Amino acid sequence: MPPFSLHRQIEADSILIRDLALSQVRLQNQKKVPWLILVPRRADVTDMDQLKIEDRALLMEEMTLASGALRKLYAPDKINVASLGNIVPQLHVHVVARFKGDAAWPHPVWGRLEPEPYQLQAIAEIKVRLNDEVLWTQ
Amino acid sequence: MPPFSLHRQIEADSILIRDLALSQVRLQNQKKVPWLILVPRRADVTDMDQLKIEDRALLMEEMTLASGALRKLYAPDKINVASLGNIVPQLHVHVVARFKGDAAWPHPVWGRLEPEPYQLQAIAEIKVRLNDEVLWTQ
Repeated sequence: MPPFSLHRQIEADSILIRDLALSQVRLQNQKKVPWLILVPRRADVTDMDQLKIEDRALLMEEMTLASGALRKLYAPDKINVASLGNIVPQLHVHVVARFKGDAAWPHPVWGRLEPEPYQLQAIAEIKVRLNDEVLWTQ
Repeated sequence: MPPFSLHRQIEADSILIRDLALSQVRLQNQKKVPWLILVPRRADVTDMDQLKIEDRALLMEEMTLASGALRKLYAPDKINVASLGNIVPQLHVHVVARFKGDAAWPHPVWGRLEPEPYQLQAIAEIKVRLNDEVLWTQ
């Protein structure tokens, strides 16, 4: 099994928040909507159904933890969860806090938002809040 | 707990294929891409993280079964899996077979495809194939 290596496009577009049992938790650098990315640390996997059953169970629970983190910090109207990967093939799961009237509502966010990166100070603050205010275990 | 009742919009847009332990498996009536919908038979749930942990594990495995069904019948390049629900709030998971060069590629399918329903004969044939050629257990 080759070692896990983060795809350079995901690395460029998001910031590492923390490691969970299976996945990296990353903040998408797009301030229009609160948006986390889970990247399972498994090499050469592009789709969820290619994970082993134990990893699939872990991933579902980490999707739930990421959803809970967004609920705690942002109280969204809806959570969107998706594994797409048509452009970046490395398996990654989007967990996005959606609000009625946000910049893409009611459409999905992908391809619908102009880039609007966070300021560095904002990233630092969100990272602290995600790590200090969220219980990342069940 | 109120009884489960399928949202009328999902009922109008898709055809029941079979029941799994947790979810209805439905065929989206859109012939541009092979597209299944899983609808957990749980009342008043809009997001995956609102399911109990046992149901979340079942749902992950049913997402895997639906992915495998699409792989078996269509040999797609990619599977897209998503729980969105910004328009239809009842929890439902899209499992979509994607092909390089399909009508929405590389974008997500939602909001990108003109309606193109199947002919009745095609629906009947797909339903038979999904039920006869796919092993819906692991």
